[in-house]
Amino acid sequence: MTDPILESIAKTLGGARSVAIMPHLNVDGDALGASLALALALNGDNCQADVLLEEPVPAMLDFLPGQEHIKKTPGDHYDVAVNIDNGDTARLGARLKVYQNAGARLSLDHHSTNKVEADISYVDTRAAATGEIVYKLLTRHMGIKLTQDMALCLYTAIITDTGGFRFSNTTPETMEIAGELMKTGIDFTNANKKVFDRISYAKLFLMKQTMNSLKLLFDGKMAVSYLRWSDLASFNAKLEDTEGLVNIGRNLEGVEVSLFLKEEKPGTFKGSLRSNEYVDVARIAEKFGGGGHMRAAGFTMEGDLEDIVRSLADAVKDSLAGEA
Amino acid sequence: MTDPILESIAKTLGGARSVAIMPHLNVDGDALGASLALALALNGDNCQADVLLEEPVPAMLDFLPGQEHIKKTPGDHYDVAVNIDNGDTARLGARLKVYQNAGARLSLDHHSTNKVEADISYVDTRAAATGEIVYKLLTRHMGIKLTQDMALCLYTAIITDTGGFRFSNTTPETMEIAGELMKTGIDFTNANKKVFDRISYAKLFLMKQTMNSLKLLFDGKMAVSYLRWSDLASFNAKLEDTEGLVNIGRNLEGVEVSLFLKEEKPGTFKGSLRSNEYVDVARIAEKFGGGGHMRAAGFTMEGDLEDIVRSLADAVKDSLAGEA
Repeated sequence: MTDPILESIAKTLGGARSVAIMPHLNVDGDALGASLALALALNGDNCQADVLLEEPVPAMLDFLPGQEHIKKTPGDHYDVAVNIDNGDTARLGARLKVYQNAGARLSLDHHSTNKVEADISYVDTRAAATGEIVYKLLTRHMGIKLTQDMALCLYTAIITDTGGFRFSNTTPETMEIAGELMKTGIDFTNANKKVFDRISYAKLFLMKQTMNSLKLLFDGKMAVSYLRWSDLASFNAKLEDTEGLVNIGRNLEGVEVSLFLKEEKPGTFKGSLRSNEYVDVARIAEKFGGGGHMRAAGFTMEGDLEDIVRSLADAVKDSLAGEA
Repeated sequence: MTDPILESIAKTLGGARSVAIMPHLNVDGDALGASLALALALNGDNCQADVLLEEPVPAMLDFLPGQEHIKKTPGDHYDVAVNIDNGDTARLGARLKVYQNAGARLSLDHHSTNKVEADISYVDTRAAATGEIVYKLLTRHMGIKLTQDMALCLYTAIITDTGGFRFSNTTPETMEIAGELMKTGIDFTNANKKVFDRISYAKLFLMKQTMNSLKLLFDGKMAVSYLRWSDLASFNAKLEDTEGLVNIGRNLEGVEVSLFLKEEKPGTFKGSLRSNEYVDVARIAEKFGGGGHMRAAGFTMEGDLEDIVRSLADAVKDSLAGEA
């Protein structure tokens, strides 16, 4: 159960008097949860561990403990810097210098595309979340008895990256670790509520507009929905506010292909295509200069909304006929 | 890890040549998943095990294996009848006779209100799902090696009753069992998609109408939404189609109290109240002849929609002022 690389990382951290912990930019629940758990474990009489952030903590993660260790302004020098849940130094932003100037550089990640240089790098692509890696580091290599605060951070890390144990990256080990974290008595119900249920005004408005726009074609096998530039501008919508809206159509009973069009700027539409069972939407997206996977693809087109819908509907119709 | 009552149940089932398995009426994922897993385990050269159902399999559970063992018309006599996930014989419907006439009656359930009489009854209220109980029965007491089909049925049982491991009934043991089930290689991603993501036309329409009706009061601390009788009638809405709609308002950022009104028949409104952090909605519901819990309560009122909203808003305003 022990791992030689995690063992060296534990040793390096054990000897450090100052540690800079750096999650990726646009921090999410995994990056922040894993970082805060590590900071909570390291901070003590002999060590100061700072979580360096360039942005505010996202509202949906405001319940995470350990935020007293977050620093906007880094210290002058750190014995050790730890890159967390981040596969690319570009996503360290201005903190890259702190990373490069540290006495030792460590990296903990689970992205298969990881190319971050470090003195010791541990990349486990089978881990559903970097939170799982930090769990192993703390409990199996650093002899830390998890507090409820650390456990809540790690649990949140894991549910964020597994969609609440629903994504295919979830493993039996993920479930086992989550069970161990729950044994500390954390309020996991509240964590799930905060991460998955809370919805912003912008998101609710855009969901509503998407639903209001939704039309069905071909006996309900194709769903078409869209957001106009005016919808997006009126709520100053962020990227995450429109994420997943294509699934409203996809999840509707009987639908095989869902097309969602987002007017990114007046007259320019970003199209998302999803399918459920048999239509290869990558092939359809390619016809319009885009690409992707069998069940999830995209493209960008300029022109009139109705013309674009008509072109896409024709292409989907062929696929429905050919493959049904 | 072994339990004497489950041990007796295992012995009784081991000696049976015919078994009638009976989930509760309005069958859900736990009742059906637990029943089908048991049927898959029992059926063989020496035993015929039927799952007796009085209704069609719900569409969202149509992916469950083992459905070849479902019978609408029961056999004449069964050596053993098993009551599954059901606390009240009234929920056996017409099958009650089959249950009463069986050679031996067994009962497996997790409801604290269970009052079903049986020769051997096992009620574990700490089990998040009856699927957990059947898992223990099969693996620890009957020496069954779980097939992927059985595991998929039990996994579905567990996610149904735990809201995908999110409800407070979820335990570390739930996670451990789910992990063991996943080790068989089941397509758990698809099970989650079917159980949680698929949405009916009626549900989507009613969600949309609810969102379109949503208004905020008191600086966004109270959300009010409603469905008119005409909305419900036009889609011949079933009870489950309106379940949870009060949460659209509750989950919106900044909202403390959500009121959702459903016009059950012209002029009669069923009200649902939910709060997030501090308002006691049971106390508010009581003022209008209803009741419930601190965070979830309800009432029924006749009259004009706008008058009812005004009365409730006044009552909520007092609570917001008094407790904020």
